[in-house]
Amino acid sequence: MKVGGLLTSAGINIGLCVLFLSLYSILRKQPQNVKVYFGRRIAEEHSRLRDAFILERFVPSTGWIVRSLRCTEDEILATAGLDAVVFNRILVFSIRIFSLAAFLCVFGVLPLNYFGQDMIHVRIPSATLETFTIGNMQERSRWLWVHCVALYIISGVACLLLYLEYTHIARLRLLHVSRAATNPSHFTVLVRGVPKSTKESFSCTVESFFTKYHASSYLSHQVISKVGKVQKIVTGAKKAYRKFKHFKDTTVDQGCKLTTYRCGLCGASSNSFKLLPVELEKEKEKPDVNGSDLSLPDQDCGAAFVFFKTRYAALIVSEILQTSNPMKWVTSLAPERDDVYWSNLWLPYRQLWIRRIATLLGSIVFMFLFLIPVTFIQGLTQLEQLQQRLPFLKGILKKQYIITQLVTGYLPSVILQIFLYTVPPTMMLFSTLEGPVSHSERKKSACCKVLYFTIWNVFFVNVLSGSAINQVNSLSSPKDIPMQLARAVPVQATFFTTYVLTSGWASLSSEVMQLFGLTWNFIRKYIFRMKEDGDFVPSFPYHTELPKVLLFGLLGFTCSVLAPLILPFLLVYFFLGYVVYRNQFLNVYCTKYDTGGLYWPIAYNTTIFSMVLTQIICLGVFGLKESPVTAGFTVPLIILTLLFNQYCRKRLLPLFKTFPAQDLIDMDREDEQSGRMDAIHQRFHSAYCQFVDTDDIPLEGVHVGSRNEDGSGSSGESSCKEGTDDSKGDLSHPTLDGLPISRLRHVVRSLGFIIRLQKRGLST
Amino acid sequence: MKVGGLLTSAGINIGLCVLFLSLYSILRKQPQNVKVYFGRRIAEEHSRLRDAFILERFVPSTGWIVRSLRCTEDEILATAGLDAVVFNRILVFSIRIFSLAAFLCVFGVLPLNYFGQDMIHVRIPSATLETFTIGNMQERSRWLWVHCVALYIISGVACLLLYLEYTHIARLRLLHVSRAATNPSHFTVLVRGVPKSTKESFSCTVESFFTKYHASSYLSHQVISKVGKVQKIVTGAKKAYRKFKHFKDTTVDQGCKLTTYRCGLCGASSNSFKLLPVELEKEKEKPDVNGSDLSLPDQDCGAAFVFFKTRYAALIVSEILQTSNPMKWVTSLAPERDDVYWSNLWLPYRQLWIRRIATLLGSIVFMFLFLIPVTFIQGLTQLEQLQQRLPFLKGILKKQYIITQLVTGYLPSVILQIFLYTVPPTMMLFSTLEGPVSHSERKKSACCKVLYFTIWNVFFVNVLSGSAINQVNSLSSPKDIPMQLARAVPVQATFFTTYVLTSGWASLSSEVMQLFGLTWNFIRKYIFRMKEDGDFVPSFPYHTELPKVLLFGLLGFTCSVLAPLILPFLLVYFFLGYVVYRNQFLNVYCTKYDTGGLYWPIAYNTTIFSMVLTQIICLGVFGLKESPVTAGFTVPLIILTLLFNQYCRKRLLPLFKTFPAQDLIDMDREDEQSGRMDAIHQRFHSAYCQFVDTDDIPLEGVHVGSRNEDGSGSSGESSCKEGTDDSKGDLSHPTLDGLPISRLRHVVRSLGFIIRLQKRGLST
Repeated sequence: MKVGGLLTSAGINIGLCVLFLSLYSILRKQPQNVKVYFGRRIAEEHSRLRDAFILERFVPSTGWIVRSLRCTEDEILATAGLDAVVFNRILVFSIRIFSLAAFLCVFGVLPLNYFGQDMIHVRIPSATLETFTIGNMQERSRWLWVHCVALYIISGVACLLLYLEYTHIARLRLLHVSRAATNPSHFTVLVRGVPKSTKESFSCTVESFFTKYHASSYLSHQVISKVGKVQKIVTGAKKAYRKFKHFKDTTVDQGCKLTTYRCGLCGASSNSFKLLPVELEKEKEKPDVNGSDLSLPDQDCGAAFVFFKTRYAALIVSEILQTSNPMKWVTSLAPERDDVYWSNLWLPYRQLWIRRIATLLGSIVFMFLFLIPVTFIQGLTQLEQLQQRLPFLKGILKKQYIITQLVTGYLPSVILQIFLYTVPPTMMLFSTLEGPVSHSERKKSACCKVLYFTIWNVFFVNVLSGSAINQVNSLSSPKDIPMQLARAVPVQATFFTTYVLTSGWASLSSEVMQLFGLTWNFIRKYIFRMKEDGDFVPSFPYHTELPKVLLFGLLGFTCSVLAPLILPFLLVYFFLGYVVYRNQFLNVYCTKYDTGGLYWPIAYNTTIFSMVLTQIICLGVFGLKESPVTAGFTVPLIILTLLFNQYCRKRLLPLFKTFPAQDLIDMDREDEQSGRMDAIHQRFHSAYCQFVDTDDIPLEGVHVGSRNEDGSGSSGESSCKEGTDDSKGDLSHPTLDGLPISRLRHVVRSLGFIIRLQKRGLST
Repeated sequence: MKVGGLLTSAGINIGLCVLFLSLYSILRKQPQNVKVYFGRRIAEEHSRLRDAFILERFVPSTGWIVRSLRCTEDEILATAGLDAVVFNRILVFSIRIFSLAAFLCVFGVLPLNYFGQDMIHVRIPSATLETFTIGNMQERSRWLWVHCVALYIISGVACLLLYLEYTHIARLRLLHVSRAATNPSHFTVLVRGVPKSTKESFSCTVESFFTKYHASSYLSHQVISKVGKVQKIVTGAKKAYRKFKHFKDTTVDQGCKLTTYRCGLCGASSNSFKLLPVELEKEKEKPDVNGSDLSLPDQDCGAAFVFFKTRYAALIVSEILQTSNPMKWVTSLAPERDDVYWSNLWLPYRQLWIRRIATLLGSIVFMFLFLIPVTFIQGLTQLEQLQQRLPFLKGILKKQYIITQLVTGYLPSVILQIFLYTVPPTMMLFSTLEGPVSHSERKKSACCKVLYFTIWNVFFVNVLSGSAINQVNSLSSPKDIPMQLARAVPVQATFFTTYVLTSGWASLSSEVMQLFGLTWNFIRKYIFRMKEDGDFVPSFPYHTELPKVLLFGLLGFTCSVLAPLILPFLLVYFFLGYVVYRNQFLNVYCTKYDTGGLYWPIAYNTTIFSMVLTQIICLGVFGLKESPVTAGFTVPLIILTLLFNQYCRKRLLPLFKTFPAQDLIDMDREDEQSGRMDAIHQRFHSAYCQFVDTDDIPLEGVHVGSRNEDGSGSSGESSCKEGTDDSKGDLSHPTLDGLPISRLRHVVRSLGFIIRLQKRGLST
């Protein structure tokens, strides 16, 4: 590929970016898109919109960029949670290290590469990009030490920055816990694999075990019931009520929105009004029809939330092996209320290890089946081979220069991109099957899977098979891989540069535009004429965005010294990403759940992997260039990097796996002394109320974003009390001669709820 | 190699074995060897020997075999500890599985192999051993399914037996804890990485931390001091005293030993009597000379033993991360008193990870440098290649048949064996440098290292490079390794068979003979005329014996289906080992420390590895024999074995990493209810007295073997009280305006001790 081709590609992408960003700055000012672009804010602030028709609305502006840049880390932490801060720090780290790398390599290494061989230089636009890589250096060149020094500086600074970020995020993680002081999840342990007893009820088993062995700290517990018919009925009833409620709200608000919204809603209103009571009556009838067998499917399922008096006690119980059978009484700290993935809670614990193995195998198979389209696409970047295979193309490609440029520079990445869109949903499906008990864990697991997938299929397969088509089984000789990488990476740098342009820049533009959301919003509003589903705000897709950012980090590191031309493009990507993602965190996505910074170890590991890979590739390249001194100097660098990694794992990683006793005890003591403890204990009664389903928004009040400050307890509590008046009594789970009263209660509760619903419906 | 060669080798080894065992049965009856063959018993029972000269003493007998077989598992547990039982169970497992394998393969597979090809069979003694391996089967043979079925049966039964052993040992481990009810180590946590404070003394830091955060369970603590001059003086003084004491004992007992012992001791007595007071006076003088700077090198070193009120509390503190710096206040359950490796305790905790990496690298380098002699030796088994390299040998080797037989059948293993003797000490050195805090941990670590070393250097290097000399870098293509193994293992089976004969049988004979101990005993007694060092009894060398047994297990599994001729020899080895090791446990070795069954996971992992390796090799062989059906059927077997392994890791392995809370709480409660707890707490005062050095035997009473039943506390306590009258007051470590009184105390204590010594010396 020539420099011209690259510039064409860059031109197209810059044009697209500017277009998209301008469009975004206009579209975001249109009131009908406000749900798309300000989902989080709307949900949080209930802000009403000004809807005057003014010219300003149709002029592109840059104010949003300034606002995005001006926002501080504390603001992000407050509005979008710790994970968002971690994501932000990853971007900051990337910008810092690649600024340095770009400076060093573009001004130090690039000229050396360009003038590496005694050759007549053609005009730069016609020069092949290979001229700018280390491939252009002469063998046994005396100037290779510059590359080596650049590698040392980049690695050293990267380690330093990584360490600083690591300590910073570890501190934030501890702060995160201490700030969420009243969060019931810190006091709660999820117990799974509770053994079945024929003598006593399930709830009694739990109670007797914990009163026997943890009497001093045990407070109460709550048995998790298998989601049965009653649950479905209640959920259905609530949905119906919510629709009704929402409809009421929107009709009241309708007046001030008339100018911008088409009045299709009014036309449809009588229809939906008629529809609802019918639904309600259907729901109401069901319990009577199935009244006799209602309690059957609503089974206790070997899991329970157990509440303790102090955070430290909960931590202890969660970390100590309880009995001599490690598959029984398995304890772990409970996820937060909004984070619980209820439908996985009732999975038998002994199934999980099989599920984990099965999904692991599934993902690996998927990863390798994916090779087929990728290797085909890779053929497109090597025109000669493509022409050999498809002779009829020869004529077309030779005649039209612009098509050749397009095909080599743009098309492969786009096709790859389309294929890659299927990956995150597939991996999310695998992660769901794995059986995680929380949404955040599921997303984190999917993130890891997508990351491995991306690095393997975008980086390794392209590098290893791209240089010599049809050679995919290069895995068979790992000793040759460094050499093969050393040969292939400088060659493939062209592809990676275009990949940054297409996948990187374009994906950021489409991220900020929210193309899918916008289209869906439009279709729903103007084609289906559905009313607004006001409360649905998506959460940030870490499992698609984090692997992207980390992949570009990997590309940056591996290409930095060898093919520095990629670095400016990459730097633009990271800057743009910094602006865009911050904007999205502040305006678009709402944080329903949070891993507490657990994405950082993933990012850290990937960065260390990238650095070591870079060093190994450089070692190979120096070997190929027959420069034993520089190759020899690279070996200690690899060892030092690995030692640094080991130190960080010892010193900082444990903080991301557990919480230190000291901090928890201090918090407990503070709460006890200030007398807050009783108030906190009171919240447990409704903290993990199962019958508010997580995917729905609670009935009263919007709880978006408030979770970070004082925990999900508040919202969970209010919604729980709304739903169940007798939830307080539910905690002790009494039985009547072995018959679990809780089952009957569920029925009574759901009936009562429906009756209440009916009353409200009639009164309005 | 021909069958004749093998039989020659077997004949030599059987002869040697019978000779050694007969010699043993005679030598063990000679009173002068009693310290060699009954070290443990002598130490435990103080038995006096009958010394009549009767003919029976010089007639070989088999009574010891009967006694060894008759002893029950409980007896072994009581006398030699849980590790000995684990070792015994490994032998039992091996005997069981290889009995089945030998039956199946010798009667089912061997005839198939022998008649596998249409060929004229020569006389069996002249038949090459390859005729009996799977290499003799025709390609695409219909009879290969027999091999496949045999593989299935062996794997299935092995898994079942493994599971039974695993559960059995896990139960024993729990019992082991509950039996050693008064063991102070269960109540003790070793804290390392205590931060230095300028304000308060080290002891105060520890006390204030634990009273602040674990006030309800904290009892007391004991700071560990760096071994300084005072320590050396005290040790020296004690040694002198011991010599003196021992001399007194032996002179008193002398009368009844006169007939058997040469009276050399009497002649030397006046000399040693004169010598000792001089030594004592020297020791006595030292404190006065260095009196001023005595307390300087005796530093506190960032580590302490902390005692808790209950076992459960100690477990909690040992497992929970204490502070937000995981390199500070690092807690772990303390090893038992006799198990503590004092000189490693004062290593700074932050050094350990570096030490671990360094020793890991060191062992790997050692492992690969060892290749050089091994590959040379391997040349000896392939006569043709040897003759090509050393032409002058040709004449010799061709003429003399017996030399050829010896060279091919016997010599290679012997040379390899001699080289292998250097391995355990080297690995033990590496393990010491690693910085373990207990003797048992050090031995376990050395055991792992020796195991990896043995498997790599005896099995893989022989297989991979032995089949084609000078090809040692076969690691470069892991995909080919199964195929290479499949080609090489049947060929190398000959070597492995002779290896079982020489290394296996012969090493057992020399183990039971205690050649080294016997020789040393003889030299010391009759050449140096030293008096008996009665109290020194070695502990069982798990780090040399366990890898041996596991290596033979690996050879058995890998050769079972492919070259079944090895199995009868192997079975004899295991039977002999069963008798010999049990005898050694009962009579020779004493158990000073115990890992609590932690050798089992090592043995389990190795067995699973052996099984999967066998299956992979069989897969390769079936592939080579172009039998897709049997190869296809082997794949699910590998998957099933791995699934079984995963299940065991989930279900049983956690029990070997920690203790279940339930059991500990029950024990605590029982002790509290029976009022034993106070008595146990009283023992803490002297449980971890540092100034009785571990390698020496305490002054009063022999504490060998009693540790298992009621813990080291008793012996440690008595010896501690002997040495220090003020040890009780030492626990609280008071300071006088920041000046650590404990340091002064050490000086005072040692002085007092020496004065007391002097008094006693004068009184006798």
